[in-house]
Amino acid sequence: MSNREAASTGSVGHNVPRAEGIDKVTGRARYVDDLVFPGMLYGRTVRSTVPCGRIRAIVRDPGFDWSGFTYVDASDIPPGGKNVVTLITEDQPYLAKDRVRHREEPIALLAHADRRRLEEGLAHIRVEYEEDEAPILDFTTSPTVLKEITIAKGDLAEGFAQAEVIVEGTYRTGHQEQLYIEPNGVIALPDGAHGAAGPGAAVTVYGSLQCPYYVVKALRGLFGLPEDRVRVVQMTTGGGFGGKEEYPSVLAGHAALLAHKAGRSVKMIYDRTEDMLATTKRHPAFVRHRTGLTRDGRLVAVDIDLMLDGGAYVTLSPVVLSRACIHATGPYRVPHVRIRGRVMMTHTPPNGAFRGFGAPQSQFAAEVQMDRIAEELGMDPVELRRKNLLRLGDATATGQVLRESVSAEEVLDRALKLHEERRRARGAGSGDGQGGQAQEGRQGMRGTGIACFLHGSGFTGGGEVRLASRAGIELTKDGVRLRVGSTEIGQGTRTMHAQIVSDAFGIPYGWVETSDPDTAAVPDSGPTVASRTCMVVGRILQRAAAKIRAELGPYQSPEEFRERARALLAARGRLVVDEQYEKPGEIQWSDETYQGDAYGAYAWGCNIADVEVDPLTYEVRCTDVTAVIDIGKAIHPLLAEGQIEGGTLQAVGWALCENVVMQGGRMANPTLTNYIIPTTLDAPRMAVEIVENPYSQGPFGAKGVGECPMDGPAAAVANAISRATGVRVTEIPATPERLMEALDQAEPGRSGR
Amino acid sequence: MSNREAASTGSVGHNVPRAEGIDKVTGRARYVDDLVFPGMLYGRTVRSTVPCGRIRAIVRDPGFDWSGFTYVDASDIPPGGKNVVTLITEDQPYLAKDRVRHREEPIALLAHADRRRLEEGLAHIRVEYEEDEAPILDFTTSPTVLKEITIAKGDLAEGFAQAEVIVEGTYRTGHQEQLYIEPNGVIALPDGAHGAAGPGAAVTVYGSLQCPYYVVKALRGLFGLPEDRVRVVQMTTGGGFGGKEEYPSVLAGHAALLAHKAGRSVKMIYDRTEDMLATTKRHPAFVRHRTGLTRDGRLVAVDIDLMLDGGAYVTLSPVVLSRACIHATGPYRVPHVRIRGRVMMTHTPPNGAFRGFGAPQSQFAAEVQMDRIAEELGMDPVELRRKNLLRLGDATATGQVLRESVSAEEVLDRALKLHEERRRARGAGSGDGQGGQAQEGRQGMRGTGIACFLHGSGFTGGGEVRLASRAGIELTKDGVRLRVGSTEIGQGTRTMHAQIVSDAFGIPYGWVETSDPDTAAVPDSGPTVASRTCMVVGRILQRAAAKIRAELGPYQSPEEFRERARALLAARGRLVVDEQYEKPGEIQWSDETYQGDAYGAYAWGCNIADVEVDPLTYEVRCTDVTAVIDIGKAIHPLLAEGQIEGGTLQAVGWALCENVVMQGGRMANPTLTNYIIPTTLDAPRMAVEIVENPYSQGPFGAKGVGECPMDGPAAAVANAISRATGVRVTEIPATPERLMEALDQAEPGRSGR
Repeated sequence: MSNREAASTGSVGHNVPRAEGIDKVTGRARYVDDLVFPGMLYGRTVRSTVPCGRIRAIVRDPGFDWSGFTYVDASDIPPGGKNVVTLITEDQPYLAKDRVRHREEPIALLAHADRRRLEEGLAHIRVEYEEDEAPILDFTTSPTVLKEITIAKGDLAEGFAQAEVIVEGTYRTGHQEQLYIEPNGVIALPDGAHGAAGPGAAVTVYGSLQCPYYVVKALRGLFGLPEDRVRVVQMTTGGGFGGKEEYPSVLAGHAALLAHKAGRSVKMIYDRTEDMLATTKRHPAFVRHRTGLTRDGRLVAVDIDLMLDGGAYVTLSPVVLSRACIHATGPYRVPHVRIRGRVMMTHTPPNGAFRGFGAPQSQFAAEVQMDRIAEELGMDPVELRRKNLLRLGDATATGQVLRESVSAEEVLDRALKLHEERRRARGAGSGDGQGGQAQEGRQGMRGTGIACFLHGSGFTGGGEVRLASRAGIELTKDGVRLRVGSTEIGQGTRTMHAQIVSDAFGIPYGWVETSDPDTAAVPDSGPTVASRTCMVVGRILQRAAAKIRAELGPYQSPEEFRERARALLAARGRLVVDEQYEKPGEIQWSDETYQGDAYGAYAWGCNIADVEVDPLTYEVRCTDVTAVIDIGKAIHPLLAEGQIEGGTLQAVGWALCENVVMQGGRMANPTLTNYIIPTTLDAPRMAVEIVENPYSQGPFGAKGVGECPMDGPAAAVANAISRATGVRVTEIPATPERLMEALDQAEPGRSGR
Repeated sequence: MSNREAASTGSVGHNVPRAEGIDKVTGRARYVDDLVFPGMLYGRTVRSTVPCGRIRAIVRDPGFDWSGFTYVDASDIPPGGKNVVTLITEDQPYLAKDRVRHREEPIALLAHADRRRLEEGLAHIRVEYEEDEAPILDFTTSPTVLKEITIAKGDLAEGFAQAEVIVEGTYRTGHQEQLYIEPNGVIALPDGAHGAAGPGAAVTVYGSLQCPYYVVKALRGLFGLPEDRVRVVQMTTGGGFGGKEEYPSVLAGHAALLAHKAGRSVKMIYDRTEDMLATTKRHPAFVRHRTGLTRDGRLVAVDIDLMLDGGAYVTLSPVVLSRACIHATGPYRVPHVRIRGRVMMTHTPPNGAFRGFGAPQSQFAAEVQMDRIAEELGMDPVELRRKNLLRLGDATATGQVLRESVSAEEVLDRALKLHEERRRARGAGSGDGQGGQAQEGRQGMRGTGIACFLHGSGFTGGGEVRLASRAGIELTKDGVRLRVGSTEIGQGTRTMHAQIVSDAFGIPYGWVETSDPDTAAVPDSGPTVASRTCMVVGRILQRAAAKIRAELGPYQSPEEFRERARALLAARGRLVVDEQYEKPGEIQWSDETYQGDAYGAYAWGCNIADVEVDPLTYEVRCTDVTAVIDIGKAIHPLLAEGQIEGGTLQAVGWALCENVVMQGGRMANPTLTNYIIPTTLDAPRMAVEIVENPYSQGPFGAKGVGECPMDGPAAAVANAISRATGVRVTEIPATPERLMEALDQAEPGRSGR
């Protein structure tokens, strides 16, 4: 590939310094809480204390001194605006009016210049409810479906008729909190206030967020404003993981309502507990698998019934469900498939976007089911998988024929090899490999598990067409400046885009200036989600670069580029090229039938996990994870490895310890002392190998990397625990309590209880 | 007076809580350095390192990495704008272009997002000079006059011909640094930048400043903009004392130039040393007195020659000179007068506004001269003064006939009585009074000195007419809201205005909402200087209140007021009344002849100071000050006393220890470790008595209070030292070194050297 040659002499493929790294390590980077505007107020939220019911009254203590306070409830939505968070379905109000539908639902807002006084004010607002219905708290028995999707392929009845063996299993995964380091936070500025909005902007919001244009859209609906009167600026953002995809639209609306009424800027930053209680989490899932196979382990029919807990409102659940369903069969070739997915309503805070976006849940089920099948068939789990992996020319469950960059078997082989090499290097001796049986002893029960997985990069074909993302480049006298609405949330967006563009021009990386995502200044590049920012937006930037190169004419060196650029600018004044997403011609997808090319390309992965289970306490320690992932091209190998290591650890936490305890529809453990994520000391050794089978439509061959690493580790860990203990782990997090219960069910008394 | 009755039942005359007090003590108040705008840069200044010369080149090290920097010099002034600080004379550039005229003169500006990097950048800019002339550093021998004023009354030759005794003396006072707690600082926002200006504003400045509309005027000139495109907002300001009257126009212009070029907000906050080196100070003065008297001590002729050190540019020196001259004869009746005043140019940083504004310097000379005369005549200094004090119906040096509120003798009598009562109460026994001779002993040499003084409130008659100040009131459903451009700089503006207005309406103090001085929101109430904010602006507010009362019709209680207000608002939507200054009919003043009613009214004061001089080190300790001042009416007695105590201590510091050492045109001691101001432990005991002889045109009788307390203490202290040591003190600060020198001259060897 000529791309690869270009990369070898340019910055792509090299670990250049992060574009925003110096700012971050020197403290120069500004997070939203670093901003202080003149006359600024602080805002807080009055929240529901019941899971559902009718609001009878909001009572503000008449004996309290309310001077200096700004109070907002649903009646304060301005005329022309709508009390609805614009997203997919218009069901969620900014502020509950007559009914509340979940604990912690926003009902009213309060602002004051003094934070302590604000707390006092909050304590003097009381909401009276009539709890006129029983709350629905268990999604598996909920009567209300928010969204349903069915994917069908072949003839399911025929498939099961052909099957010689049928294996069934049910799987459960829990909530997971995104736990970005920086909680959700925004500052809203009203028209004409101190330090107010840009020229013409009626509402300006600065925030910690992933998708500035989502917030613009939501604020337009809330205030009934045209697009150019709303301005949203992303500040340096301390992590997102999906948790700042849709929620900032809610928070920004709240702050903007307060700012609008007060005529002053309003800062709303959640503390950790409020963030954990009130914002979105990963959807809990319940998945049933019924698999038909031949005796020798060939998959012939798969029937999957998948339910997600949507919480009280629709939010992004339909899209999460879509991705969960499309990935539900994992990286396997199955002739007869039915996948039925449903999002169920519960009276709990809405769940939402989280790295992987449904695919980790459905592939956890698929990969534990594969181990269960291997056990039933008495087959080696690796051989079972290898026999069924998707290969070039195969069709997925949606009928997508895979034409390039298919690496399911390669990542499996490489992972096995790497795992074995490392095991030997550690002096553990060769031996049982991933299929190793339980070893019980002083060191605990040990086991190794495997998982294979894939992850579609970007939105589904139809989704990207609807987004019609735009990104661009401005020629400057010193190089070029990016015009990108994609956000840097720690993952390396700016660095990677600058690398792609510097190589597209053949100029030094340092000549590419990045831009702040400010909707008044940059085009809508689509949301920074779905592992699309490199593959999709990077590609648009390549096309913009090509257009500018055509204007510049041929040049032989960066110096000549600069001469030509300056001459062009002298003649033209300014040269800005914005390009829009163009669907690669061969992609065909139907949102109606769920048939066709679901995603432009897939990343492919394989994890092998080693665990050690304490025979007395049943605490599980994941000691080692091997991760081999094909991402097409690592634009920045170090950042890509970082994505893989981070996603892997986040998935290990989800599998073992991250346990959201819901009581009465409310998270009962909303602090970092009782919601446990892996620390450095809990992290397994990790070996990451990046495979680069290029995708012809990705920049320099790149596909997505952000989400894929999250899809496999939980199943690998669960399978390893099963190997270690002899008991199938079907529900995560696999806490000691759950393991004991499972062991007691399998072999009463074994846990010693 | 009916005013007094109203006050007795309202808030005027009572120590109500400070309007902004809670914000300050709780930390809620925002100073300019508390503000942080997105993308904000820090700015610094490249300054002259020579006192005068031609700029040959500004060299930016070509080997240094200038990326991320914004650099501005005189060539960056936008087309249509002028490189001149608009004030009185168009002589001072924002950035020196061909020549520099003083050390620390701004030549170029540099901004960067990172403060450390900014320092590195500054170190890589070098200015080359050609020092083509010898600097003028001594104002008393300077050949260049920046401004000259002569006041003449009677026939000087005739007066001296009548005189039986002629006494001559020369007096010197030094620079004084305002030393507000918070150094000068601003943030400038460019059009359309992050967190940018209000609607339509091309330049927005937030700052620590006294006179927002001065800054507007200066920025308009710099950028060539109409008034409505410039917006200036005063943030909570940590002191001014005149040091934030004109200098913020310079700093705001610098920050705005950087912001304009960078397209980002720029914060410029001086550190203490830069503030002391570069900003304005009190003008040093040199004053010659030639006084003709009758043998029994009646003043018949006074010839005063007064020189001020203007520094390199005119700034406000003409007005400082004006006030110095008008006050030069002190509170005395003299039939034949000539006062010649000149501001001299030196190649030193321009001097400017400082509490008292020339009057402390000229009255220091007048009051030490009075003691010298008493000594020559062998008279009691009190009796000499009493014989000559201005009384009702007398005419001042400008021919102003005093028609009301003249208290020169009353404050003298009260001060003597209070001093004596306190002396007795301390058990010091009755005795030598203010005329007490030196007592030498273990406790040091003791002495007591007196000074009588007056201070004109507000601008001169012509000045107030030109200002045409505006202030107003808006009726709200809960009371009224002030519309005032006067600034709160610690002295109590907001509280005092709210008191005046609440009593003008007969409503509770808490019903009056104050406003932030934001030129986009409040009218130009004139600068917050010259002891005018209560007397002049308070009066305008009273008139606005009267207009609104006329609209409301009669009411009997605050509750009825509120009912009527709400009814009126329901009918009218909004009710805002802005009133403009109207000259009281009887005031006649000529700026050409310097004849007539210089000020609407005068405050009158008398200080008695006790000192103790260490006989070995000649350190002087001021142990006690009595201050009796007539301010017409103390709207807020506690704040008024605070003004008097603060001004008194500032004057004692000026008299004894605040010593600006200039070397080569640069302050050599620009830190708090070597520029010494009195600490709490250095402060004398103070007794403050407020006299209230009302002025018919002041609100509730009030005159000004801010500056008067600064006028007397230095002379009282100097006279006390003379009593203690037997040597006339004619130069301040009276440092131990100066005292030793004076003693050695009077009586060689006395100091022990």
